Amino acid sequence: MTMIGLAILTILLLKDTCGASVTPDPVFQYIDANQEKFVQRLKEWVVIKSDSSDPSLRNEVHKMMEITAELIKTLGGTAELVDIGLQQLPSGETLKLPSVVLGQIGQDPDKPTLCIYGHTDVQPARKEDGWDTDPYTLTEINGNLYGRGASDDKGQILPWINAAEALQSQELPVNFKFLIEGMEEVGSDGLAELIMKRNQTFFSDVDYIVLADTAWISEKPALTYGARGNCYFLVEVECANRDLHSGSYGGVIHEAMTDLIALLDSLTNSSGHILIPGINEAVAALTDEETKLYSGISFDHEEFRNKIGAQELRQKNKEDVLLQRWRYPSLTIHGIEGAFSGAGTKTVIPAKVIGKFSIRQVPDMDPLQVEKQVIEYLDKKFAELKSPNKMKTTMVIGAKPWLTDPNNKAFHAGRKASKRAFGVEPDLIRVGGTIPIATTLEDVTGKNLIMMPLGGPYDAAHGQNEKISRYNYIEGTKFAAAYAQEFAKL
Amino acid sequence: MTMIGLAILTILLLKDTCGASVTPDPVFQYIDANQEKFVQRLKEWVVIKSDSSDPSLRNEVHKMMEITAELIKTLGGTAELVDIGLQQLPSGETLKLPSVVLGQIGQDPDKPTLCIYGHTDVQPARKEDGWDTDPYTLTEINGNLYGRGASDDKGQILPWINAAEALQSQELPVNFKFLIEGMEEVGSDGLAELIMKRNQTFFSDVDYIVLADTAWISEKPALTYGARGNCYFLVEVECANRDLHSGSYGGVIHEAMTDLIALLDSLTNSSGHILIPGINEAVAALTDEETKLYSGISFDHEEFRNKIGAQELRQKNKEDVLLQRWRYPSLTIHGIEGAFSGAGTKTVIPAKVIGKFSIRQVPDMDPLQVEKQVIEYLDKKFAELKSPNKMKTTMVIGAKPWLTDPNNKAFHAGRKASKRAFGVEPDLIRVGGTIPIATTLEDVTGKNLIMMPLGGPYDAAHGQNEKISRYNYIEGTKFAAAYAQEFAKL
Repeated sequence: MTMIGLAILTILLLKDTCGASVTPDPVFQYIDANQEKFVQRLKEWVVIKSDSSDPSLRNEVHKMMEITAELIKTLGGTAELVDIGLQQLPSGETLKLPSVVLGQIGQDPDKPTLCIYGHTDVQPARKEDGWDTDPYTLTEINGNLYGRGASDDKGQILPWINAAEALQSQELPVNFKFLIEGMEEVGSDGLAELIMKRNQTFFSDVDYIVLADTAWISEKPALTYGARGNCYFLVEVECANRDLHSGSYGGVIHEAMTDLIALLDSLTNSSGHILIPGINEAVAALTDEETKLYSGISFDHEEFRNKIGAQELRQKNKEDVLLQRWRYPSLTIHGIEGAFSGAGTKTVIPAKVIGKFSIRQVPDMDPLQVEKQVIEYLDKKFAELKSPNKMKTTMVIGAKPWLTDPNNKAFHAGRKASKRAFGVEPDLIRVGGTIPIATTLEDVTGKNLIMMPLGGPYDAAHGQNEKISRYNYIEGTKFAAAYAQEFAKL
Repeated sequence: MTMIGLAILTILLLKDTCGASVTPDPVFQYIDANQEKFVQRLKEWVVIKSDSSDPSLRNEVHKMMEITAELIKTLGGTAELVDIGLQQLPSGETLKLPSVVLGQIGQDPDKPTLCIYGHTDVQPARKEDGWDTDPYTLTEINGNLYGRGASDDKGQILPWINAAEALQSQELPVNFKFLIEGMEEVGSDGLAELIMKRNQTFFSDVDYIVLADTAWISEKPALTYGARGNCYFLVEVECANRDLHSGSYGGVIHEAMTDLIALLDSLTNSSGHILIPGINEAVAALTDEETKLYSGISFDHEEFRNKIGAQELRQKNKEDVLLQRWRYPSLTIHGIEGAFSGAGTKTVIPAKVIGKFSIRQVPDMDPLQVEKQVIEYLDKKFAELKSPNKMKTTMVIGAKPWLTDPNNKAFHAGRKASKRAFGVEPDLIRVGGTIPIATTLEDVTGKNLIMMPLGGPYDAAHGQNEKISRYNYIEGTKFAAAYAQEFAKL
């Protein structure tokens, strides 16, 4: 065999191992060669004002769902726009919900099937909120692509569709299914029902679900194996049938605000430690194996503190900060509805006030138990106040935490893909926020899920000047392609 | 002397005693004969949307001041529209302040001079806020005249102007001066400066000031000898440079709301008793004479409680309820700026929150002392929290209480006038609210002031369906006329 023959054989052999090559990977090359097209695609998506919270922009969301389906079809796939019914507005009017895209690229029964979940609706954005560029015009500045939805989530779902295109230029290692919704930012109306309805059909041959959303914790890629749940409470206290003047009535009324402030103050101690019996006791014990995961994570808690302008964090080292954010509960008082909240100096005694707080959930907390514990605790505290007022505590959200095993095969594939696309081992992380769709997808379909964020740590999802870096967007496309290949090998 | 001659003499003699007649009083007869004209006058005033809080309605306030001056001139008086400069809007723009009317009817140096203070601007009102009738169309239903400003204060200043007209039909017993402003509902911008400027001119020959505003405490007429002051505080706590997501940051931040809630909770005990050292200690001791005043007052505390839909009052009898409303301090927590206050379930950690509370002031409290006591107390409480956050307490209003002697000659005249107009002794009352112009007028001019409310106890000033009864409006005009006559006799 000549040296040339050996080299060709080596390349062929390497190619046989499905792209785990040290020589240029043809799929990665395709992605690099098409990166302007992929950025243009994101630009065409960002320009659509698919803000699901604004009923007047609902047609933009409908349009967004249509072009999402269109793109999948253009790439040779199939895509159904599934009608999921009507949304009831607070005004009593109804509005058509955006259809959900159920798409598919690749239909080979001999290949495994990955179902990619994402959303193409966005948070509200207006230039006058403090954006430096027009939020609906994708604008590149210093390697960052600015625009609403650039990171959350248009710029994280597109890499998977682009990856499917790139893989097709060689060979699809898996079948891709796409579950793409248009109501994620306002609570995924109608999605759980759809998943239940299509559980025996669309989801029946899915091997694994990939959630294409959320963000890295540092400049290193990450795979996410957990998210906190959330129990959201309203505490309503009422002292009169209308707001009263504090001059005419101050001193003779048991004021609702006095009661509510006392109740809210009883929830935690001054540093925020939860005082409701049973909450902390329910938290799963920290294992040695888990502890080890934390020390290796790239995270600078001082930089994190600095970015948000906090004087001091409650925890003093990286591990404790991450443990608290990801695997311990926390209680936040969000605000009060019904009290005076404007600028200036109104002298009102609010008649009915609703305190709002939530408790982030971690294993082994159970929202139904937490609901009982909170209501019992506040009932007891309120009785101690000996107030004649009416008080009622209601849990309006009870979302379970999500946790999976970071050592399973999906994470194994993810780590290999990360090394190929980014050249580094990914961080194995959790998120402090709540992603109810993750538990719904797992619970209904019985399939496992992995979260593969492509967003950077400071992409300002939901904020002004949201962005994704071109690096994350393009290398993220390679990550997605490599993941499909690695997953197929398992 | 014939019987007819005797009768004529009797009438003449009775007339000499300035209308303290048991036979029909000619001034009262004039008022009765002209009551439709007076109601029409109120209608013409109510139709003008002189809402001083709305910059887009400023021209309506200007128009209101002009027709106020015009009416005084029509009755043979003089009226100056005094320019008091510009208002700075929060946007940075400036707006012309409504001119103040300095009017006069009667210029006899041998007669005493009463200065009547009132305002012709109104609170906002929109039909869709829950009015049963158009708020700017005076509408009579079952003896009540409904419309914005009907009681506060167009329908209380007009009776004095109408009384001057009625008295002129016979003989003016006093000179009337009128101080009528158009910014009362938003803080009387520029008025104190004007009073200081005209102290040596317009106010120099004033013998007594009558404040024509506020309301009775029952269906009985009232004379008011005291009002509580008010110290309004802002407590600002800041934990970050921007609002944070409670999922990503919950548990690692010393949350500003946790600190603020603890501070607000430390202000009173659970029934509202003020815990700040020095506040209760400063209250003047209750005298026996004062106690006696309270037992005679027509006030049904159960009806009062029922009207506002409170389950229970903090005090159990009429006297204690009134004492608390009028001559003891009270602390009300009004609300929080910067926290989530909308409907729904936002999961925010507010970065900067401003708690708002105020303490009603009574003799011998001193706002400057109270400011010191509150700031020292909250600084101490905040230090106990050991929070790394920034905290700052500011007093933004420091209005002194107002109190005068209910046994002085002005009240003597008022009691006589009440008996003539309404047939009953008036209640001698105080108000729990704050009327800063009362202390300003007394402090600057050195003259004494009496408050003579004509509004009924449930007129809903500032609320929906504001009204004045035709009885209060017309008999109140007689009350005003009789007061001028009785005052002149002293």
